[in-house]
Amino acid sequence: MQLTRAADYAVRVMIHLARLEPGSRASRGELAAAAECPEQFLAKVLQNLTHAGLVVSHRGNTGGFEIPASRRETSLLEVVEALEGPIELNVCLGAEDCGRKGWCPAHPVWADAQRALTGVLRSKSIAELAAASVSPHPEAVLT
Amino acid sequence: MQLTRAADYAVRVMIHLARLEPGSRASRGELAAAAECPEQFLAKVLQNLTHAGLVVSHRGNTGGFEIPASRRETSLLEVVEALEGPIELNVCLGAEDCGRKGWCPAHPVWADAQRALTGVLRSKSIAELAAASVSPHPEAVLT
Repeated sequence: MQLTRAADYAVRVMIHLARLEPGSRASRGELAAAAECPEQFLAKVLQNLTHAGLVVSHRGNTGGFEIPASRRETSLLEVVEALEGPIELNVCLGAEDCGRKGWCPAHPVWADAQRALTGVLRSKSIAELAAASVSPHPEAVLT
Repeated sequence: MQLTRAADYAVRVMIHLARLEPGSRASRGELAAAAECPEQFLAKVLQNLTHAGLVVSHRGNTGGFEIPASRRETSLLEVVEALEGPIELNVCLGAEDCGRKGWCPAHPVWADAQRALTGVLRSKSIAELAAASVSPHPEAVLT
């Protein structure tokens, strides 16, 4: 029961992009360094984020990745789900109906635990986290 | 980010055993049916539960599996962790120190989410769930 590395890197990328001036773009290399993620693996993460509309990719010399203004309010939960799909803490909470649901006493506890977990992730936006973050390399913020 | 099938089956087994009269034993076949789990897979689950001391295995004709009285108060969290090890919602919450911990704004949110999740699972004991359960096959309770 653990977040995938891809979702973890996606959150790091989103926070990094949200800390840039509006309209600024970051290269894949810059994002890989910021997220401490191998560049090739990050390519897949960025593909997912772009596909979900959370990040916009620009080509060419002045290209790079950008977070649209409207996406700064994306919650941590939405970023995780863009990478992993809807969170299902147990298979019985998924789309397929579990035959035990009507009487299984563990089912409502799994559902409660999932609500508690997603509630925390839903309550925090990327913008909020970006504002709270302190760069480990302060000079990088000024460039 | 999903519970393993093994942990799900382990919880089912524990609830089934806790619903039996104190001192009663159940065979592996009975537990496999109750947990709706392939018997061979269940053997591994039972091995883990026995190893963790949550279940006692008796050999011989009158053998079978039993939940010690003191283990009826085991929490759902303890059963899950007996199968999966300590819950670490993100690798940064694990034993190895994450270099980003001091400044990463996502770290405290992962920690909060983990606390929320484990709090729910810690709050429910197997005995409580067993008492709340309604058998799908009422006649099975009487045998």
